[in-house]
Amino acid sequence: MERVCFRLQVRKEHLTEYVRRHQEVWPDMLQALRETGWTNYSLFLDPSDGLLIGYLETPDLEAAKAGMAAREVNARWQADMAPFFEALDGLAPDEGFLRLQEIFYLA
Amino acid sequence: MERVCFRLQVRKEHLTEYVRRHQEVWPDMLQALRETGWTNYSLFLDPSDGLLIGYLETPDLEAAKAGMAAREVNARWQADMAPFFEALDGLAPDEGFLRLQEIFYLA
Repeated sequence: MERVCFRLQVRKEHLTEYVRRHQEVWPDMLQALRETGWTNYSLFLDPSDGLLIGYLETPDLEAAKAGMAAREVNARWQADMAPFFEALDGLAPDEGFLRLQEIFYLA
Repeated sequence: MERVCFRLQVRKEHLTEYVRRHQEVWPDMLQALRETGWTNYSLFLDPSDGLLIGYLETPDLEAAKAGMAAREVNARWQADMAPFFEALDGLAPDEGFLRLQEIFYLA
């Protein structure tokens, strides 16, 4: 399994709504994530500055991203989410996220 | 299990050395972490700005922190690490870390 950590920046004026949306993620979006290998997947927020951290485990991140890119529900979800984020340069959030480098691991 | 995500800020001039130290964490430090419930524990770094993210799973974070706080090896390790970080206000890194809020989870 790859352990993946990525960061995004949520606009401070949209923090409350961003959190609310993630309490009611569409069931077909959850199902698509499950089917494409996104497991043990958390999103963590620092409300002080809008830093959003994603952590997930997947057999192959490129396959997991490609799998979601092929799902119609993901296109709708990412289009809905895009305005919540800073500095995506026109990319969807799941294309514009910045992956961090794992420098230590203890099982 | 609690899923825990925390952030720290590594001083940019110390990034290389910080990474190097984590390739050779002392065996007795690793053993202390294991014995006090730090599992599936990763550190992730963004070298562009020194953002350091920790992710771990533990039955009880307060117990895991208290367990390490009672270990002599942890005092030595944290004293060694403190100069690598920004803005700890005199706290050890494992006391000064800022925990993020989990806003979404998919098993």
